[in-house]
Amino acid sequence: MIRQLTHGLGEDMKTAQQVADYVKGTLHGDGDTPLSTVGSLEHASSGALAYAETKYVDRIAASQASCILVPPDNIPERTVIVVENPRVAFARAAQWIVPSTLPAPGIHKTALISPDATIDPTASIGAWTIVEAGAQIGRGTTIFPGGYIGTNCHIGEQSILYPRVVLYPESLIGDRVILHAGVIIGADGFGFVFDGERHLKVPQVGTVRIKSDVEIGANSCIDRGAFDETYIDDGAKLDNLCQVAHNVRIGPHAVISSQTGIAGSSTIGREAMIGGQVGIADYCRVDDYGMVGAQCGIPTRKRIPAGQVFWGTPARPLKDIKRQQADLGRLPRMRKEIQQLREEMELLKNTLASKNS
Amino acid sequence: MIRQLTHGLGEDMKTAQQVADYVKGTLHGDGDTPLSTVGSLEHASSGALAYAETKYVDRIAASQASCILVPPDNIPERTVIVVENPRVAFARAAQWIVPSTLPAPGIHKTALISPDATIDPTASIGAWTIVEAGAQIGRGTTIFPGGYIGTNCHIGEQSILYPRVVLYPESLIGDRVILHAGVIIGADGFGFVFDGERHLKVPQVGTVRIKSDVEIGANSCIDRGAFDETYIDDGAKLDNLCQVAHNVRIGPHAVISSQTGIAGSSTIGREAMIGGQVGIADYCRVDDYGMVGAQCGIPTRKRIPAGQVFWGTPARPLKDIKRQQADLGRLPRMRKEIQQLREEMELLKNTLASKNS
Amino acid sequence: MIRQLTHGLGEDMKTAQQVADYVKGTLHGDGDTPLSTVGSLEHASSGALAYAETKYVDRIAASQASCILVPPDNIPERTVIVVENPRVAFARAAQWIVPSTLPAPGIHKTALISPDATIDPTASIGAWTIVEAGAQIGRGTTIFPGGYIGTNCHIGEQSILYPRVVLYPESLIGDRVILHAGVIIGADGFGFVFDGERHLKVPQVGTVRIKSDVEIGANSCIDRGAFDETYIDDGAKLDNLCQVAHNVRIGPHAVISSQTGIAGSSTIGREAMIGGQVGIADYCRVDDYGMVGAQCGIPTRKRIPAGQVFWGTPARPLKDIKRQQADLGRLPRMRKEIQQLREEMELLKNTLASKNS
Repeated sequence: MIRQLTHGLGEDMKTAQQVADYVKGTLHGDGDTPLSTVGSLEHASSGALAYAETKYVDRIAASQASCILVPPDNIPERTVIVVENPRVAFARAAQWIVPSTLPAPGIHKTALISPDATIDPTASIGAWTIVEAGAQIGRGTTIFPGGYIGTNCHIGEQSILYPRVVLYPESLIGDRVILHAGVIIGADGFGFVFDGERHLKVPQVGTVRIKSDVEIGANSCIDRGAFDETYIDDGAKLDNLCQVAHNVRIGPHAVISSQTGIAGSSTIGREAMIGGQVGIADYCRVDDYGMVGAQCGIPTRKRIPAGQVFWGTPARPLKDIKRQQADLGRLPRMRKEIQQLREEMELLKNTLASKNS
Repeated sequence: MIRQLTHGLGEDMKTAQQVADYVKGTLHGDGDTPLSTVGSLEHASSGALAYAETKYVDRIAASQASCILVPPDNIPERTVIVVENPRVAFARAAQWIVPSTLPAPGIHKTALISPDATIDPTASIGAWTIVEAGAQIGRGTTIFPGGYIGTNCHIGEQSILYPRVVLYPESLIGDRVILHAGVIIGADGFGFVFDGERHLKVPQVGTVRIKSDVEIGANSCIDRGAFDETYIDDGAKLDNLCQVAHNVRIGPHAVISSQTGIAGSSTIGREAMIGGQVGIADYCRVDDYGMVGAQCGIPTRKRIPAGQVFWGTPARPLKDIKRQQADLGRLPRMRKEIQQLREEMELLKNTLASKNS
Repeated sequence: MIRQLTHGLGEDMKTAQQVADYVKGTLHGDGDTPLSTVGSLEHASSGALAYAETKYVDRIAASQASCILVPPDNIPERTVIVVENPRVAFARAAQWIVPSTLPAPGIHKTALISPDATIDPTASIGAWTIVEAGAQIGRGTTIFPGGYIGTNCHIGEQSILYPRVVLYPESLIGDRVILHAGVIIGADGFGFVFDGERHLKVPQVGTVRIKSDVEIGANSCIDRGAFDETYIDDGAKLDNLCQVAHNVRIGPHAVISSQTGIAGSSTIGREAMIGGQVGIADYCRVDDYGMVGAQCGIPTRKRIPAGQVFWGTPARPLKDIKRQQADLGRLPRMRKEIQQLREEMELLKNTLASKNS
């Protein structure tokens, strides 16, 4: 009744020649070599495709992989596929080789679907999932067991919601989005007004809009906007246990590592790279292609200029932080130098004083 | 079968005059203006109430809001409600205008309710919810689908547990508490004793007590006491992904931002403000009205005195941290000054030596 | 239908003499004293066992505990059990006294079990749990309601999965493992390759292997390996909201406090102690018995030598960090000294100049 999700155990094997054709590479060796999974150069077993970047070509000889994607500069005597960028070709080939056997289309009999919801017949709705009124679920989308799809949520095509994902009402999810288990989309932003005695809750009437090809890691939380949208643009990737507050905007293809928190109304630019455990306060801007090192703390309204690398708390340009750390390392020597100067100064003063007396 | 939760899309509209009366303000303009939602000054649309603080009154002219709460000092020529504190009045009005359409009372047919549990007939128990023996659920409380209410848990009146909240046994929840999706209350505290070979688990036999008007953000965890209570007092607000360890006590109306962790037996005072990603070690005290900046690290047994502002790791008074950062900024100049002194010292010594020779 | 989980409310009472025998201690006082729970020295009530370490023996007199584990050096006039290490004896006794009444064996009628899964008849499978094809669940293991056990997962004996735990396919869990509510095992690691336009997902085909006697706190996430295993060895303890990335290896009896994140391919040694909110970048090593202070940030490929204590960001030996902080504290005085030297230098130069003129 529930079909299995299989990682790396596909039956529909590819051959090395087929993979070479798929990644537009040149095959050397046995084109009939069967490939059913992928692996690292060091640990791949027979039947696996691996890859070697130029700096690791000396490890190729020892690899058990059946076929290896290699750069053109040094082609070994075994079954390999020559490509310009082995890493990129590997990712493409791996997506093709590794079967992602998802549950079959259809609505599980235990799911509770509002008569006012619209579910494409090719979508798969797992057991004990609720789909509320006005919700729309697109072609080929999979919702694993225990999903909660609130009122008026829209989910596009070919998206995957792993077990126990919760979408609060009016959350909008694009195509080919992956939400890992335990993700919470659209919970109330943290908005209160203190009236002198207590914090009054400001109703959070905004929404969340997640564009296409976004992936969000397990147990991450994306709050709904206070009045407007919290927005995650195409191709952005968020790791596990991230926090995205109300009205945050994350640019296309930005990458945000685990346990990072982004406070209200901050903006992350296109292809920005944010390390793990970074804290970004409210109303900050990380401009396009900005990079922020792990555990960095960006204070309120701070702006990271386009393409720059910042680190530390409070965040500074990486070179300033490195200089500051070098300065710190020189402190003991500075102290010693001051002491020497003092001693020599006393000596000089005594010398002069004795001359004068 | 499952009623929808609607944010900001109410049918029972209010008029501007009704809102003015509700917040005890003075209406200027058209009292019949219908108001069905709220918004920000910049993005509100027709039908929305917004507010303008004194510093933003110049933005009023461009706002599309149908009615604006304004301070008495500068009353524009449009439909406005004059109040002393527009922000507080807005929060009050918004709670009144925005309908929080919760699920209807009643127990969903798929819920599993122990015959020894007591559930008020006006409570709403969602699908696939368990309520164990000895549990009590009060008047008007809503448990969204997938709730787990352990043995002997008590929940007061008008509380809301969003989807997939887990209460371990004996957790006590007050009135008007909001627990967002994925919150875990009462998991075992992290208590072990190393016997020389392995860590023995110390059974965590305490409980969690959460008083009234508390709100806890998505996927946050509040551990049960080791022997006694973990305690969160009236009106405290915790953001997403917070960690509260065994025997912590959080004072009334304290505010704790996202991803903050509070270790065992620490105490947070009344109306304390704790920033995001703060780490508070065990046996610390943040006294009443204390403020702790984002990413601050408070070492074991440290006390933050009442009303003071601390920052940095290890935590220090904000002014000390700022002075230290200024000192750090002066390091390159200090190094240069020492070098100059050294050069002048050599010169002087040479001058004296040549005189003596 | 669902039996209750009771903490500290057992009916099968022990006597003080029985407890003394169990921990191999010497009873003084009334051996018939009934003991049904445990508590702290300060807050224990009648019927409770407590313990006193040597430094706290002066608090024994005021304790309401019915029996106290004490060290041999100072035996008070009340019912006590004398042992070498009261803390270790307490943990042992507490596990024995406090009944952990788990749900009865059997499969709840609402659970969905694949015909190709193997479940020991003494295991307990809670409501709305899925067990997929090829999964195996061992003797005496308990899965609370809402569990998701993916294809080919194996769980050993006497393990406990609290409500809403998710195991992605092929996750391997040992004996006597405790996974708290909301734990996610085996979600995809954060692996992407940028092709110049977008991040290509690298299929994560590895697995997670968790050995025996491991405990993992609520809402923590352990990602599957990219190609190989993410591995947690015997007896390791992880607190709430921790993040363990792909290919991480955690050694036996390591202790990792809450909200710590460990990035890809890093290794934590035997009995290492990692504080809360620590960030460990990729390819790091914390060697056996290493200690890492709270909020420490360990940069990529850094190694913490065996048995050493590190702190700060970037991580340094604790004594270096302390010296650096002392240096920082001396900065204002250094500045003053430089200024004094400058003044004296000017004075000297003037004196010499006037002499020469």
